[in-house]
Amino acid sequence: MTPLDIVWQWPETPVTIAVIIVLAIALRWLILRAIKRATNLAVQRAKDRRPATKDTQLQAVRHAARTATLGSLLRSVTNAVISVLTVLTIMAAMEIPLAPLLASAGIGGIALGFGAQTLVKDYLSGIFMIIEDQYGVGDLIDVGDVIGTVEDVGLRVTRLRDASGQVWYVRNGEITRIGNQTQGWSTAIVDVPVDPDENSVKVIGVLGRVCVEVHADPELGKLLLEEPRVVGVQSVDAGRMIIRIIAKTHPNEHFVIQRAILDRELQALKEAGIRGPRVVPSSPTL
Amino acid sequence: MTPLDIVWQWPETPVTIAVIIVLAIALRWLILRAIKRATNLAVQRAKDRRPATKDTQLQAVRHAARTATLGSLLRSVTNAVISVLTVLTIMAAMEIPLAPLLASAGIGGIALGFGAQTLVKDYLSGIFMIIEDQYGVGDLIDVGDVIGTVEDVGLRVTRLRDASGQVWYVRNGEITRIGNQTQGWSTAIVDVPVDPDENSVKVIGVLGRVCVEVHADPELGKLLLEEPRVVGVQSVDAGRMIIRIIAKTHPNEHFVIQRAILDRELQALKEAGIRGPRVVPSSPTL
Amino acid sequence: MTPLDIVWQWPETPVTIAVIIVLAIALRWLILRAIKRATNLAVQRAKDRRPATKDTQLQAVRHAARTATLGSLLRSVTNAVISVLTVLTIMAAMEIPLAPLLASAGIGGIALGFGAQTLVKDYLSGIFMIIEDQYGVGDLIDVGDVIGTVEDVGLRVTRLRDASGQVWYVRNGEITRIGNQTQGWSTAIVDVPVDPDENSVKVIGVLGRVCVEVHADPELGKLLLEEPRVVGVQSVDAGRMIIRIIAKTHPNEHFVIQRAILDRELQALKEAGIRGPRVVPSSPTL
Amino acid sequence: MTPLDIVWQWPETPVTIAVIIVLAIALRWLILRAIKRATNLAVQRAKDRRPATKDTQLQAVRHAARTATLGSLLRSVTNAVISVLTVLTIMAAMEIPLAPLLASAGIGGIALGFGAQTLVKDYLSGIFMIIEDQYGVGDLIDVGDVIGTVEDVGLRVTRLRDASGQVWYVRNGEITRIGNQTQGWSTAIVDVPVDPDENSVKVIGVLGRVCVEVHADPELGKLLLEEPRVVGVQSVDAGRMIIRIIAKTHPNEHFVIQRAILDRELQALKEAGIRGPRVVPSSPTL
Amino acid sequence: MTPLDIVWQWPETPVTIAVIIVLAIALRWLILRAIKRATNLAVQRAKDRRPATKDTQLQAVRHAARTATLGSLLRSVTNAVISVLTVLTIMAAMEIPLAPLLASAGIGGIALGFGAQTLVKDYLSGIFMIIEDQYGVGDLIDVGDVIGTVEDVGLRVTRLRDASGQVWYVRNGEITRIGNQTQGWSTAIVDVPVDPDENSVKVIGVLGRVCVEVHADPELGKLLLEEPRVVGVQSVDAGRMIIRIIAKTHPNEHFVIQRAILDRELQALKEAGIRGPRVVPSSPTL
Amino acid sequence: MTPLDIVWQWPETPVTIAVIIVLAIALRWLILRAIKRATNLAVQRAKDRRPATKDTQLQAVRHAARTATLGSLLRSVTNAVISVLTVLTIMAAMEIPLAPLLASAGIGGIALGFGAQTLVKDYLSGIFMIIEDQYGVGDLIDVGDVIGTVEDVGLRVTRLRDASGQVWYVRNGEITRIGNQTQGWSTAIVDVPVDPDENSVKVIGVLGRVCVEVHADPELGKLLLEEPRVVGVQSVDAGRMIIRIIAKTHPNEHFVIQRAILDRELQALKEAGIRGPRVVPSSPTL
Amino acid sequence: MTPLDIVWQWPETPVTIAVIIVLAIALRWLILRAIKRATNLAVQRAKDRRPATKDTQLQAVRHAARTATLGSLLRSVTNAVISVLTVLTIMAAMEIPLAPLLASAGIGGIALGFGAQTLVKDYLSGIFMIIEDQYGVGDLIDVGDVIGTVEDVGLRVTRLRDASGQVWYVRNGEITRIGNQTQGWSTAIVDVPVDPDENSVKVIGVLGRVCVEVHADPELGKLLLEEPRVVGVQSVDAGRMIIRIIAKTHPNEHFVIQRAILDRELQALKEAGIRGPRVVPSSPTL
Repeated sequence: MTPLDIVWQWPETPVTIAVIIVLAIALRWLILRAIKRATNLAVQRAKDRRPATKDTQLQAVRHAARTATLGSLLRSVTNAVISVLTVLTIMAAMEIPLAPLLASAGIGGIALGFGAQTLVKDYLSGIFMIIEDQYGVGDLIDVGDVIGTVEDVGLRVTRLRDASGQVWYVRNGEITRIGNQTQGWSTAIVDVPVDPDENSVKVIGVLGRVCVEVHADPELGKLLLEEPRVVGVQSVDAGRMIIRIIAKTHPNEHFVIQRAILDRELQALKEAGIRGPRVVPSSPTL
Repeated sequence: MTPLDIVWQWPETPVTIAVIIVLAIALRWLILRAIKRATNLAVQRAKDRRPATKDTQLQAVRHAARTATLGSLLRSVTNAVISVLTVLTIMAAMEIPLAPLLASAGIGGIALGFGAQTLVKDYLSGIFMIIEDQYGVGDLIDVGDVIGTVEDVGLRVTRLRDASGQVWYVRNGEITRIGNQTQGWSTAIVDVPVDPDENSVKVIGVLGRVCVEVHADPELGKLLLEEPRVVGVQSVDAGRMIIRIIAKTHPNEHFVIQRAILDRELQALKEAGIRGPRVVPSSPTL
Repeated sequence: MTPLDIVWQWPETPVTIAVIIVLAIALRWLILRAIKRATNLAVQRAKDRRPATKDTQLQAVRHAARTATLGSLLRSVTNAVISVLTVLTIMAAMEIPLAPLLASAGIGGIALGFGAQTLVKDYLSGIFMIIEDQYGVGDLIDVGDVIGTVEDVGLRVTRLRDASGQVWYVRNGEITRIGNQTQGWSTAIVDVPVDPDENSVKVIGVLGRVCVEVHADPELGKLLLEEPRVVGVQSVDAGRMIIRIIAKTHPNEHFVIQRAILDRELQALKEAGIRGPRVVPSSPTL
Repeated sequence: MTPLDIVWQWPETPVTIAVIIVLAIALRWLILRAIKRATNLAVQRAKDRRPATKDTQLQAVRHAARTATLGSLLRSVTNAVISVLTVLTIMAAMEIPLAPLLASAGIGGIALGFGAQTLVKDYLSGIFMIIEDQYGVGDLIDVGDVIGTVEDVGLRVTRLRDASGQVWYVRNGEITRIGNQTQGWSTAIVDVPVDPDENSVKVIGVLGRVCVEVHADPELGKLLLEEPRVVGVQSVDAGRMIIRIIAKTHPNEHFVIQRAILDRELQALKEAGIRGPRVVPSSPTL
Repeated sequence: MTPLDIVWQWPETPVTIAVIIVLAIALRWLILRAIKRATNLAVQRAKDRRPATKDTQLQAVRHAARTATLGSLLRSVTNAVISVLTVLTIMAAMEIPLAPLLASAGIGGIALGFGAQTLVKDYLSGIFMIIEDQYGVGDLIDVGDVIGTVEDVGLRVTRLRDASGQVWYVRNGEITRIGNQTQGWSTAIVDVPVDPDENSVKVIGVLGRVCVEVHADPELGKLLLEEPRVVGVQSVDAGRMIIRIIAKTHPNEHFVIQRAILDRELQALKEAGIRGPRVVPSSPTL
Repeated sequence: MTPLDIVWQWPETPVTIAVIIVLAIALRWLILRAIKRATNLAVQRAKDRRPATKDTQLQAVRHAARTATLGSLLRSVTNAVISVLTVLTIMAAMEIPLAPLLASAGIGGIALGFGAQTLVKDYLSGIFMIIEDQYGVGDLIDVGDVIGTVEDVGLRVTRLRDASGQVWYVRNGEITRIGNQTQGWSTAIVDVPVDPDENSVKVIGVLGRVCVEVHADPELGKLLLEEPRVVGVQSVDAGRMIIRIIAKTHPNEHFVIQRAILDRELQALKEAGIRGPRVVPSSPTL
Repeated sequence: MTPLDIVWQWPETPVTIAVIIVLAIALRWLILRAIKRATNLAVQRAKDRRPATKDTQLQAVRHAARTATLGSLLRSVTNAVISVLTVLTIMAAMEIPLAPLLASAGIGGIALGFGAQTLVKDYLSGIFMIIEDQYGVGDLIDVGDVIGTVEDVGLRVTRLRDASGQVWYVRNGEITRIGNQTQGWSTAIVDVPVDPDENSVKVIGVLGRVCVEVHADPELGKLLLEEPRVVGVQSVDAGRMIIRIIAKTHPNEHFVIQRAILDRELQALKEAGIRGPRVVPSSPTL
């Protein structure tokens, strides 16, 4: 049938086309509505499962941003898919030969599909990471290659800024695990080396007193979630006995606490007359 | 055939459509019931194969959670698949041209399939890990990249919190092996270095007496499953002879036991006048 | 043709359907019987090729368990495949449109196939490892990432418990090579360091006498398969000459033998007045 | 139908062909216009999300270059695809047998598709990196294998020149993460080793004064974004206590600052009579 | 056409079926014969290309075993393939609807194919390794992960026993290169360290005399293929000059020769008054 | 239709065949012309984007070689493709059954396609590397595994000769990044160690004077692009302070410059009475 | 149509079959001839591009061997492909149902194709390596995992024998780069360590004189392509200054030259009274 026949096949073909268009519009409305509800639901459910954080205000802003990003993507995809399908179905109803079009699309689709798989993977990973709210702008995250503060949560790439000021663009599909340092607390580990001939009970006593002082310190205490603990003799070797102290701090404050405790403990040990590690060429790990 | 023909082909087409819908509903009911039974059976069977743990209460809670998670997923998938198939079959019965739809779906499905394979892999891994009950909320697990306490068992990602307080989102498909430290016991290994000229029998005697004391200690003894054993001379080198002690402890208590035994052994050796390792620049592994 | 036509096409369609069902049942019976024989045969053949072990009782139990596991899986697969094919063929005989169903299944199958390949790989690996009887419950195996005692041989995962008490779930498809330490013997290697200026013949003589004593020891001798051998000077360097002793032991008893021989050799050398290694800062491998 | 029939089937076939050509031209015009708008929009959106940089002039030049590169590619692809489809559809309308052509193209497309996937991946990565404006000519970027200044942003490869003058051609698809050192600031980290017996408070005082001087220096101060900070005792060991200084600098100026601060701190410590690290054979990391 | 029609379409359908069966039997006979000849030929050709070994008896046994293993596999595959094709062709001739069967098989084949590729790879590798006779039972081979003596040459896995007695099951497809230590000779490399101030000509003279003695030794000489050679000064550093000796031995006898030469050379150097390496803390590689 | 029918269907089939052949020849002529223009254009464009180099003569030779290599390949491919398509279309016009041919080609194409993908990848990489003129014969390039001088630029492999005289054949598809050391300059980095107690200002003065001398040297100066710069104190540790000198040289002349500067600096320091690094057992990196 | 019909459709079907057979034989003759010419041409072209070597006799032998190997493979493939296609086309002409055959072949082809891709890759790599004449029997090559002398150049595997006498079977597809040490020359690099306080000009003078002597040596001189050069001070550190000597030798003679030069240089330095490196515990790389 050629296009000219349409005029003569009145009213069959036009009616079929009209029915197809009406169905397409209805379907689009239904899908968009379903997307809206599903997005809201998924985001809501993720929020419920996420570890509680203090800032409700921030949560609300993030929630809105995530819903907007996802909704925009899914709406674009829905529009594109329904348009293409409607046009193709109308062409089929008009009996325009679709075979070359579909065959070419098939060959092209497969040829492209191999190369585009990382792209699809990036987007799918991005969608799920956003739905599951694994991180948001301002979180300090560890994505394997890079540790940095999130500056932008995208569907394909995530933009981070690391401690040295460098900006990183990381493809979402390349992230196999995410460590979020902002959801919870951090831990400062301080290893204090002393002479192996010192009495460990006495050393632990000195160290413990400093822990109490640090916790009582008005400035440092604010960074701590609980009093630092001296957990005991970590290892011993010719020339060195290592006593470990562990402190739970607010997120990302462990470096400050680590340096402060180390400095104070060294001074306390000197005052208490406890000798530092002896000069030993090298100490293999036990 | 155009939609307008349906009216005239009474009663054939409407009856066919009605039969299809009835069949779809019956099929859905059958599948949902099969899923329920299969899930229960699989979860039950996994429970039987799992190493016994003390807390039956906890097991029941976990069992319910797992059945709910799996059932919810499988019900959603069943509903989606049956709806799509029913609509397509009705369209075929109404002789609406399906070729463009199916061809597009095919091309899109292949193009997406390449990129979505990690997603499918994550979900399938998640389903099987949940069915097999490899770990539950609160278990301390080792998934290769991360060691932490499970906070959430999801179908796509598992959320852990490691010892330093960082939250980890690990994709289930990336986990090739899981080490569950909570199903069984832990082992504390203490290597005590002494002077290589000391008599090994005497040293082992001193160390053995401390082992008995540690086991008799009211606090430490509770963490031990059996008396620590001095297994003998582990290695010898210029300047250092290493004696190894092994202790079986309750899950995740081995660090505490390790430090306690090391501290006590060092004091016992000092009291017994046994010299520590000599200062040797470096000792290559034997 | 619509379902209503079936009534009028008597007796053709019902007879065709009946023939199909009868054929399906016959086929199922044949395949199940073939599976039974093939499983038995394969398991039997694997047993013949396997290195001989002492415990025939254990072998029989394992044989039964393996046949049961495999048979159960293959029977489920056969039932599922034949049911699906029978239903589809009957639908084709009744002229219900199958195109949408098959096309959807095709698209879904490909999309799933990419993601499910690790799952299929796990199962196929599991099936062959069970048929070939590479290991059984209680064997100590090395699967690359983990070394442990097998607690459960599954079709998808193998459950191990390592020496520290941790339980490991390892996917069968991830295991590219298996080292079974229980099928045969173990080897203890003891490297004894002495002063490089000592006469090697004299040292080897002293060490050899201890080897004879260890073999004669009632307790240690039971763990040995043959008398330990002093194989000679392994390497020499400034400050250290290493003499190697090798002992063949019963499976997994080499650590005990290793420590016992090392301890006795050190005492024998001290008694014989042979000096230990000189203090040398570091000795690069020759 | 053979070509000779066209003459006799007047006017149907020629009219169909004319309609196809008109539709193709219209479609091409529509797509080219859509591409132009989409490119502008995407580039604009990326610009809005990008971290602010000082040079608006440079931004405008880059924006034009990116739009031109993308537009040129997309126009070529559009022309090629529409030409091929138009020719195929006309051939179908003329009833020339297309099967061998399409089948060959399919086989060739699949065979090529496997090998060409890295090519497609490179182009797709290039397109997205240009749209998202991850870097531009003159930026110093880290692409994993190579760190260098961008000399050319291509769709398939990016040309960099590293610090040693070597030119690098890196395929865009091989870049899984990009670190852009020019978008923001750099950080200079200076670790100053002193004798562990020195008083840390005194040492930090001396170092702090130098930091103030460096910031006041007319030449060095221009490179700094803020006054360098002495963050405290980083680690301690037999023979060495390390104090860390951190300075935020303009992009890529941290090496200059690092060397300048290190040099000045050493002189200041010598003047203040603070001893440097003691000679210790080797210090294992804490 | 339904099965009932067969009776009435006499004699066409039965004759067609008979012809198909006769053709299938003839084809099977032809293929089995071709397999036999091809296997013999391939195995024969591999034998001609293989490095010559002494034991013709062993070769004959191996040749028979290989031909049997391959023939058995290929016969099973031929039988299975011809049976399936014959049944399908007969069903087509009887006009039973094959579409659902083939479509299901196609979908299942693709879905399985992804997961089964390692299985196919293992078998194909096994077949070629057996045809090419890369190793046989009793050979000491290096397959990358494991070095051991072959205990069983299978089509899917190869069973090895390593030097410590552990049994290894290695999948044939995972073996990318095989090193066969039994086809040829082994090489013992002895590095003798002396004082760097010693005269190298004199040292080489002493070492050379020992080489002659070792070659003349009735027991050690049997293991050697030629007299060991002192190849000269391998490297020099503060405190150590290394002279290298190389000896060609019978397969797997190099460890024995290595230890024997090292022991004798050390005694000869002591007798000749040549000093050993000086005590130097560590010598970086030149 | 059988071949015999051609005679009777005069003139339709012969005319169709003639038309197909004429179209094929015209198409071939068009494509060959397009290839010529596209190759020239692409090569020209790559030349414009490439960093400027001195030798225009060499560029012209290379340009001709590249155009010839690419043109030859593309002409062969065009001829092959058009011949196959013409033959297939003629066979279709003659109604010879093409199904078995195309189906076999399809199966073979897919089966081969999996294995041939590295081959296709090699060729495609080669084509693009030649178009983009990433390197030419005589350039010193770094392809990851190998660094050497290009001896032959092939479509599948590139032949290099490394510094030790070994010839390398590297597959183009395995090259993910290329470093061309001949397009630009090289950098010599000289690290001069001195005693940490020396005054850094004085040392830098001495070193700077040598830099001026080296630049003034008639022979060495020709290799330099600018005066070497003393960039300052690179690091400091117990026993050693390192001063870094950087010099920009003509391509591949940095090793000569490096050794010359190091030698002269050492002599200048000795003359100026500046002590070298103190003997310190080992200096961990800061 | 059943086979019985052939008799009645005389002469159409038999004539068609005869035409097909004649065409197949002609096609086979054409392809075999094309293969012969293409192989010769490719091998010839590769010979022209290959670096010149001395032995024309050897080249001729190799050329013949390569042409034979390739021709044999391509002839077998051609025969197989044409036979299959002829049989299938005849079956199609006889209207025997081909669908089940082709469908089964398709499913089997895809399922096998995944697993067989490494096999195809091995063969394709082998074919191209033979055409390009990258190495021949007797060449010493480096294939990444193994360095050895080629004993057999196969289409699937290459057999090497390494320096220790072990035979290696390496799959051609696993070889991503080949280093041929026999096509050109080798380079001996000798690093001579001396006291850092020695005058470098004097040391280089002494070393240079030995280089002249070595080149004049009747035996060693034959192995050298040019006089060894003292390239200067390679590095300096506390306790050690390293002077590098580079010598161009005939292929694989660099180890002999290296040891000879090192030995002679050490004696020359001793005679000239130049001190060796001082005893320094460890020297980090500059």
